[in-house]
Amino acid sequence: MKRKDDTKRTKMLDAAAEIILQEGAAAISTIKVAKAVGVAQSNVYLYFKNKNDLLLNTYQRELSRIRSAGDTFQYFNDAALPIEQRVESYVHSIYDYAIEHPDSLTLIEQIKMLNLSEMDLFNTDTVVIDLITEAIQQGYLKNLPVNLHMVTVFNIMHRHALNLKENLYSKDQYSYKEISQMVLDAIKATKR
Amino acid sequence: MKRKDDTKRTKMLDAAAEIILQEGAAAISTIKVAKAVGVAQSNVYLYFKNKNDLLLNTYQRELSRIRSAGDTFQYFNDAALPIEQRVESYVHSIYDYAIEHPDSLTLIEQIKMLNLSEMDLFNTDTVVIDLITEAIQQGYLKNLPVNLHMVTVFNIMHRHALNLKENLYSKDQYSYKEISQMVLDAIKATKR
Repeated sequence: MKRKDDTKRTKMLDAAAEIILQEGAAAISTIKVAKAVGVAQSNVYLYFKNKNDLLLNTYQRELSRIRSAGDTFQYFNDAALPIEQRVESYVHSIYDYAIEHPDSLTLIEQIKMLNLSEMDLFNTDTVVIDLITEAIQQGYLKNLPVNLHMVTVFNIMHRHALNLKENLYSKDQYSYKEISQMVLDAIKATKR
Repeated sequence: MKRKDDTKRTKMLDAAAEIILQEGAAAISTIKVAKAVGVAQSNVYLYFKNKNDLLLNTYQRELSRIRSAGDTFQYFNDAALPIEQRVESYVHSIYDYAIEHPDSLTLIEQIKMLNLSEMDLFNTDTVVIDLITEAIQQGYLKNLPVNLHMVTVFNIMHRHALNLKENLYSKDQYSYKEISQMVLDAIKATKR
C-alpha cells in the first residue's frame, strides 16, 4: 500500500489553486492536477476522494489561512470581549488578509460560485457564523440572513484588494477607516 | 458570402449562457457553442470575432436586459429627479431584476470573474457609473471607488435572490425595505 506524503498533498492543493486562478474552478480535474504535480491520476485519489473533495480541501485551506493570518482572529473569537470589538476585529482581519492575499479570496469566491450542492460552503465557516448570529441576537447587527452579512464583508474587501492589485488607486488614497465604514454601515443595525 | 441571421446569433448567445451557468465562464469555447447550436465552428466566427467577443456579447446582453426590465430604469436615468430618488430607483431595479432573474446576475458575475483584461467590464455600464459619480459629487454617496458601490448593490441583491431560489427563506420573510436598507446604509454618505 502506498504511503501518504504531506508534501505531495500540499503540491496537489497548490496545483489545484493555480489551475482555479488561471482557468476558473470549473476547469479543475484530477488529471490536470496529476499532470501539474507529475504523478499518476490514481495517486491523486490517494489524497482526495474525488474532484469535489479536492475543491473542498482547497477551499478549506484558504479559510484556515485567513484564520491563522495576523493576530486579529484571537480577538473575534474571544467571547469575553464586547460584541462591537469582536465584529470590528472580524472586519479588520478580512481587510488585512484581502490586501495581502487577494488571490486567496478570488479562490474562495471561484469555488463558492460552483454552487456544489453537496457541500454547504458557507456552513464550514462556523466561527464567523457563530459571531454574526450572536451579534444579530444582541441587536448589534441587522436582523438579516447571516450569509448576506458575510457576502458584504467579503465582497467589499475583496474588490478593494483587487483594485489595489490592479493599481486603480494607491493604498493611501482610501484609509481602512473609510473602507470599513462602508462595511460596518451595511451590517450594523440602524440606530433608532 | 453567408448571410447573418439574428435568430442564429440569439441561439449562440443562449448556448453560451447555458454553458457558463452549467460549467463556468472559463469552460466556454466556440466549438462547444457550435455543437450546442448544431452548426460548424466557422459559423460562430461569422457572428463573433473570437471567444472573448462571444463572452463580452453574452455579458452585454444581460446588462441590457437589466436596463429594459421593469419601469425603474427611466427614473434613475432622469437627471431632473433628485439624486436620492435616482439612487433608490437604481437599487430597486437591481433588486427586482435579481429576484426575477437570479441566473442572469450569476452570468454577469461569472464573466466578470474571468478578469479579461482587454475588456473593462465595469466601464461598459456607463449609465450606472455616471449616476454613482454624480451622487458622490453631490455628497449623497460615500466618496469611495465607484466599483465598490456597484459591487455592494450587486452582490447583496444577488445573494438574497440566490437565497430565495435555494429556499433558504421565503420572500415575505425579509421585506424590500430591510434588504435595501443594508445596501443604502453601505453606500450613502455618513451623516455628520
